[in-house]
Amino acid sequence: MNAINPHISSQFDADLEEIRSLVMSMGGLVEQQFDSALRALLENNVELGQAAASGDYQVNNHEVEIDQRVIDTIAIRQPTANDLRFLFTTVKVVGDLERIGDKAEKIGRLALAIQPLMNGYSFAADLHSMSVMVQKMLHDALDAFARMDADAAMTIKNTDKEVNATYRLVLADLMKHMSDNPNTLDLSMDILWCLRSIERVGDHVTNICEYIVFLVKGKDVRHTTRDDMMTEITE
Amino acid sequence: MNAINPHISSQFDADLEEIRSLVMSMGGLVEQQFDSALRALLENNVELGQAAASGDYQVNNHEVEIDQRVIDTIAIRQPTANDLRFLFTTVKVVGDLERIGDKAEKIGRLALAIQPLMNGYSFAADLHSMSVMVQKMLHDALDAFARMDADAAMTIKNTDKEVNATYRLVLADLMKHMSDNPNTLDLSMDILWCLRSIERVGDHVTNICEYIVFLVKGKDVRHTTRDDMMTEITE
Repeated sequence: MNAINPHISSQFDADLEEIRSLVMSMGGLVEQQFDSALRALLENNVELGQAAASGDYQVNNHEVEIDQRVIDTIAIRQPTANDLRFLFTTVKVVGDLERIGDKAEKIGRLALAIQPLMNGYSFAADLHSMSVMVQKMLHDALDAFARMDADAAMTIKNTDKEVNATYRLVLADLMKHMSDNPNTLDLSMDILWCLRSIERVGDHVTNICEYIVFLVKGKDVRHTTRDDMMTEITE
Repeated sequence: MNAINPHISSQFDADLEEIRSLVMSMGGLVEQQFDSALRALLENNVELGQAAASGDYQVNNHEVEIDQRVIDTIAIRQPTANDLRFLFTTVKVVGDLERIGDKAEKIGRLALAIQPLMNGYSFAADLHSMSVMVQKMLHDALDAFARMDADAAMTIKNTDKEVNATYRLVLADLMKHMSDNPNTLDLSMDILWCLRSIERVGDHVTNICEYIVFLVKGKDVRHTTRDDMMTEITE
């Protein structure tokens, strides 16, 4: 059932419900993959690192299937403008979820090599707190999507500023470390890619939140702030 | 007029044609922005760097407008499955074009600071040839989209392997430079972000090519190769 616009056609409701639950199932997979990747990175868990690095095909399959379902549903059911907005937003959300899966895959793959450098370094604590923030953003955004809660989505979107601030702190620390230890530059670069991937997950979650606001309020909040630009400047 | 499936309704043809020309106009803007960014980076052109860094709002406005037009067209015209595929693909292509614009903005912004390090360094020539390759990929992909040429799209997609190989060369050179010159790490990092952005533009062009193949052949070629993964491993 579509919360925004209930239908007379119960078959159409069933289609939408099925798409929605495919998105939630994909969201659950991505959350789990990201969690495994972060635990591999922060807790030196070899098995979880491998799981994060190899589980991405399931996420990708979900994306392809949901996209196809959306096209089929539009073709067969000729939805109203409101339902179209839901389907359209779904495709966008799924695209960002797929990209979060890519980042998790990458972190999982790099995590194990990085361990020698992670233990005891000054940036480890900040990286940890940044990871926890982004993980909570992802969880809350999926929850906001399930409940179509635009206010929650706006709150989550604002959290990304804090993530970006922490990102800049860790980056500055890491660069100092690189400068002082040119002999371990390879490992530092791997940490850099992980750090950057976690920050990008925050950006994708922000996109998802913007789609939720667009869907519920009919207002396109993409490209309306300069915050992203500020983040990039400081890189 | 839609090349794949001509319509009885001439108004619908006009809608599709208008969407298609908006995409081409957005593509032209993105191409110009990326060209300005690369010339700022490679030829030390201050004005073009500023143009690339400040022109992104036009690209973003195009994205928002095209998305809305697609929703309106589907809602009013109830398109067939073939036309839906075209509209659906358009939304995906536009999303990747928008991200290419983001990269161009970033390169344009960083380019000017980097100049002191760019002149005479070993990686400059490879970075230049990589830039030329990616720029050609973008141009050819827009052309393939305009002509709905799936064979051309496959050829362009394959070029990305060469881009990735050159990326790895430049990255290795740059890391050696970083290791030897820890005192200019800030500048090296800016080059790294530019290098990475150019490589990512290649990935977005590859996505666009996959959408063209999907549209023309009805075959989803996303997530079918491990090439992306190989790229990431070597980072």
